[in-house]
Amino acid sequence: MSDLNEAAPSQAPRHVPMDQFEVCSGELLINGQPITRLAARVGQTPFYAYDRSLLDRRVGELRAALPAGLRLHYAMKANPMPALVGHMVGLVDGIDVASAGELKVALDAGADVAEVSFAGPGKRDIELQQAVAAGVLVNVESFREIDVLADAAQRLGLPARVAVRVNPDFELKGSGMRMGGGPKQFGVDVEEVPTLLARIGAAGLAFEGFHLFAGSQNLRAESICEAQQKAYELALRLAEAAPAPIRALNLGGGFGIPYFPGEQRLTLAPIGENLARLQQRAQQDLPGAALTIELGRYLVGEAGLYVCRIVDRKVSRGQVFLVSDGGLHHHLSASGNFGQVVRKNYPVAIGNRMGGEATERASVVGPLCTPLDLLADRMVLPQAQVGDLVVVFQSGAYGASASPQAFLGHPHCVEVLV
Amino acid sequence: MSDLNEAAPSQAPRHVPMDQFEVCSGELLINGQPITRLAARVGQTPFYAYDRSLLDRRVGELRAALPAGLRLHYAMKANPMPALVGHMVGLVDGIDVASAGELKVALDAGADVAEVSFAGPGKRDIELQQAVAAGVLVNVESFREIDVLADAAQRLGLPARVAVRVNPDFELKGSGMRMGGGPKQFGVDVEEVPTLLARIGAAGLAFEGFHLFAGSQNLRAESICEAQQKAYELALRLAEAAPAPIRALNLGGGFGIPYFPGEQRLTLAPIGENLARLQQRAQQDLPGAALTIELGRYLVGEAGLYVCRIVDRKVSRGQVFLVSDGGLHHHLSASGNFGQVVRKNYPVAIGNRMGGEATERASVVGPLCTPLDLLADRMVLPQAQVGDLVVVFQSGAYGASASPQAFLGHPHCVEVLV
Repeated sequence: MSDLNEAAPSQAPRHVPMDQFEVCSGELLINGQPITRLAARVGQTPFYAYDRSLLDRRVGELRAALPAGLRLHYAMKANPMPALVGHMVGLVDGIDVASAGELKVALDAGADVAEVSFAGPGKRDIELQQAVAAGVLVNVESFREIDVLADAAQRLGLPARVAVRVNPDFELKGSGMRMGGGPKQFGVDVEEVPTLLARIGAAGLAFEGFHLFAGSQNLRAESICEAQQKAYELALRLAEAAPAPIRALNLGGGFGIPYFPGEQRLTLAPIGENLARLQQRAQQDLPGAALTIELGRYLVGEAGLYVCRIVDRKVSRGQVFLVSDGGLHHHLSASGNFGQVVRKNYPVAIGNRMGGEATERASVVGPLCTPLDLLADRMVLPQAQVGDLVVVFQSGAYGASASPQAFLGHPHCVEVLV
Repeated sequence: MSDLNEAAPSQAPRHVPMDQFEVCSGELLINGQPITRLAARVGQTPFYAYDRSLLDRRVGELRAALPAGLRLHYAMKANPMPALVGHMVGLVDGIDVASAGELKVALDAGADVAEVSFAGPGKRDIELQQAVAAGVLVNVESFREIDVLADAAQRLGLPARVAVRVNPDFELKGSGMRMGGGPKQFGVDVEEVPTLLARIGAAGLAFEGFHLFAGSQNLRAESICEAQQKAYELALRLAEAAPAPIRALNLGGGFGIPYFPGEQRLTLAPIGENLARLQQRAQQDLPGAALTIELGRYLVGEAGLYVCRIVDRKVSRGQVFLVSDGGLHHHLSASGNFGQVVRKNYPVAIGNRMGGEATERASVVGPLCTPLDLLADRMVLPQAQVGDLVVVFQSGAYGASASPQAFLGHPHCVEVLV
């Protein structure tokens, strides 16, 4: 134990408790179902499990914190599992898609086309045509798209519904990723937007509003408020050059979830208050405009787990390795190899030993022949054995779909909505 | 031009010339075929193209540099495309697989089971049983595997052919990845190997030799020679405790290819000379033992291209963005998001403007809604237009199979062997 304490003093940053999941008789429960039973029902490891009750609860908490009438969209790039998208369609006000492939899933899931929007920096001609045929809103990100949309609208005899995605002259401070400010492939530089709006008007496209997205994975409420505030002011200024009144104003998202030791959950209250003020102003400034926020990771990330089974337990030069049947091929982000500069551990537990005292420092690795295949680097865990179930929390977003599943020819994972 | 020179002085490190591919009338040729014609034949972008003549040439150069009788294996994890594996089966002496999925592809491709070996830190029971049934050599990496193999051998009435994968007490200096030395999930610590060998003998497994693999992606011949030398000495020492004479000694691989500015191609001559000396010694020390080296990336990496098409050309605050239909979902490594600490550009060209003067600094980005989706960061290229073909060189290894193809729902890429 002294060795454990030496390496991880009690002052060291810790993961925020993963108390969204209940525990019973030492087993983690996924929507009330013990993890060993769920693994038996799935019939294989590894798998991802998403908890419906946690999706419901998260949207409920948001609705309570956000002003009435504010529209909540799900950015399905975070998790495109069809059953999950279907569940979200029943919870949120609209779905944001990033490709024609995602559009298909959203439509199959029964999303209302009036509240589907399509963004992306390199939409192909065929995708723009599909969007017009579907009747969804296209977030225009380049001058080229105007001509393609106008042509599609004429040939199909349908309106081309568009909003303008703006590359703002500010960025979302402290974001995991910056998607606005400076030179960017996303949207159209704010300086160019008046010209773009004139072209949209001349081409006869059905202009509906603006989309501003400054960054993602942000845990600081004040930064998010500031970005929303600036986005609103910018939209107000740009609206003067718009060919039609603003009906839809998408203020983006950027709400983060805590992944790493020392990170805390986002405080919603100030964001809700800020949005309430903006919504009130909009009633004066932009009558008829609906304000929308667009969230992906924040809606689904904490509701998901990645579950894999320990197939071997090895001790190499004093270090314990729990070799599991899952790894970076299913969960690239948790391995630390997707855009992270310094690898840190996601919260990890032994799902069938939840009560157990954490007495051992162990690394959880996968079956791949590469040292990158690491799910937990020397974490303090209950002593685990072959057959135990390793759980990686915070895995509901950018998991299965964002991982190189074909790598090294291991079986693909399964995804279940519980 | 002064602006270009300012940002990239002529003293700046450059990519090694990608002169393995010929150019004709401004078009890059893939095994003699102009790239625009190949794109038309494939019928879609993006695609990967692998050049048979370059695979042949690379193996020919190796055979010329390596001593006669040294066995050359292809580690198919580098590129498991079935047609390519089939081509490699005709060129090399054996195939190394990392999963039962890869084993299937190797057997389908007609690989001789006598020269197929199976390595991996987390082989599942079923995979070990499949290996015994197939009759391939299993590189044992833990004590647990002995019991599973003995059981499978008894039930199937077949020998369980095994080599011992050793975690050595040294590492391959200057490697892209270290896979030996210190505590590792790979192989069995050299200190434990005598005990493991006794267990293998007692369990009646068909012991054949050792496998030592110290690292990968190394561009320094002297480091590779040193690791091979040490691996040989170590095997010699361990052979004293072996339950049967050594028939196979796999000295690993680790041969790198140049990806980034300033890197040079590996010099083969000293490696060939070193291996010739080791082979001569082995005739005395380990009569009947065949020496093998195992290469993946080095055999196939330089023979492959990733090809995508420019769908938009945007200028944002003075910076040119060539937005292509390909990106990190097909080629995670080239985007800099797979294990790299500092992102650097792979060699990139405009495949249908090969003669063109490089007059413009441009970034090649993909269609994904993330700033990570970057194939070339402000590279100096000929001025490119919508419809042009972007080529990413050095893409024959760890490309399609090592990328999150489902990410954001864009079409999967195609792979062709030309």
